[in-house]
Amino acid sequence: MKGYSASINYLIQAFARFPGIGPRTAERMVFYLLKSEPGEARRMAELILRVKEHTFFCERCFNLSESKLCHICLDESREAHKILVVEDPKDVAAFEKSGIYRGLYHVLVGHLSPQDGIGPEDIRVRELFDRVEREGLRELILATSARSEGEATSQYIAAMLAARAQVRITRIARGIPVGHPIEFADQATLARAFEGRQEMKQEVRRGHEIQVPESQ
Amino acid sequence: MKGYSASINYLIQAFARFPGIGPRTAERMVFYLLKSEPGEARRMAELILRVKEHTFFCERCFNLSESKLCHICLDESREAHKILVVEDPKDVAAFEKSGIYRGLYHVLVGHLSPQDGIGPEDIRVRELFDRVEREGLRELILATSARSEGEATSQYIAAMLAARAQVRITRIARGIPVGHPIEFADQATLARAFEGRQEMKQEVRRGHEIQVPESQ
Repeated sequence: MKGYSASINYLIQAFARFPGIGPRTAERMVFYLLKSEPGEARRMAELILRVKEHTFFCERCFNLSESKLCHICLDESREAHKILVVEDPKDVAAFEKSGIYRGLYHVLVGHLSPQDGIGPEDIRVRELFDRVEREGLRELILATSARSEGEATSQYIAAMLAARAQVRITRIARGIPVGHPIEFADQATLARAFEGRQEMKQEVRRGHEIQVPESQ
Repeated sequence: MKGYSASINYLIQAFARFPGIGPRTAERMVFYLLKSEPGEARRMAELILRVKEHTFFCERCFNLSESKLCHICLDESREAHKILVVEDPKDVAAFEKSGIYRGLYHVLVGHLSPQDGIGPEDIRVRELFDRVEREGLRELILATSARSEGEATSQYIAAMLAARAQVRITRIARGIPVGHPIEFADQATLARAFEGRQEMKQEVRRGHEIQVPESQ
């Protein structure tokens, strides 16, 4: 883009690399910064560096975190005997926004996808099984996506844990539109899906019998 | 937005303050940065600081600049006897992209708007008149917007300079769609508007007589 100084051109180009941001929007963003208070641009630059340099995976649940353990794992008011299993940190944020869940999470950071060569060793299922072993869970709630990879991932986890009778394994109801990722579900749909979760072991045992959830 | 670390939330909020950027796009932007190479985030942060702290108005033409004089004023290959008058630095960029103009610019940094209390002392017309006085111009090309404020601004400048017979005063043709700001005009429209520019003094003298531009 001619007509601007080199730095402005570079910043327009940098912003235009964001997904969904075209050169015109990038130009408007730069002009917004030029007109904003000096503190706002400095704060944004500092946040970019801080987020990039100080964001890690939580060592316990693999949510995004600024410390060894994420703020959810560190929150002692959470129900520590429940783990909700999701594919992506964005799914944690979606559940937190709905406000319906007060337990812990486990982020798989992916899903099984044999056709893409993604097996159990490529996602955080080993760490999930270790947590089930160690943490004295009462319930594992599977909230992988309603896509085939998500279903396969939940089926795999349920099958691997089938022998552990003491842990209730549920998965959220398919109230979530099939084919949509969890992060785009609205809060009401997420809440309904959560409340309608069904026993996974029993579903396998009883076949097509209608299930009534044992408890919320 | 719950579920993310504090820094990530702050950065999402900071990005969502950009015009046209909603919280969902802001979230995607943050995840793009998290997945990008470390150098890309650092470079973006540095560019934001540099653009914000080292962008000034050119002391001569009021284009945006990283130095006292902008890169166009400093470019000795430009035709120094022509000044194209625009309202905004974005309009300079639009003309530079079209490639049709090789003279200098003068950015008014606004337009006359009596109903908003914006008079000649609020925009850079005094500095324009000083340049006309000093710089030995042959042509002043008025390229304010085709909106009523832009028209009024051009009429005012032409009237103030009417006595200076040695300077040819033109304005770009209304090939630009009426009501649209110049920065959104496509390059072909800008080029046609530039080539179809008409004598302003003669237009006033001859009334509705059809004009043939004297030269390109």
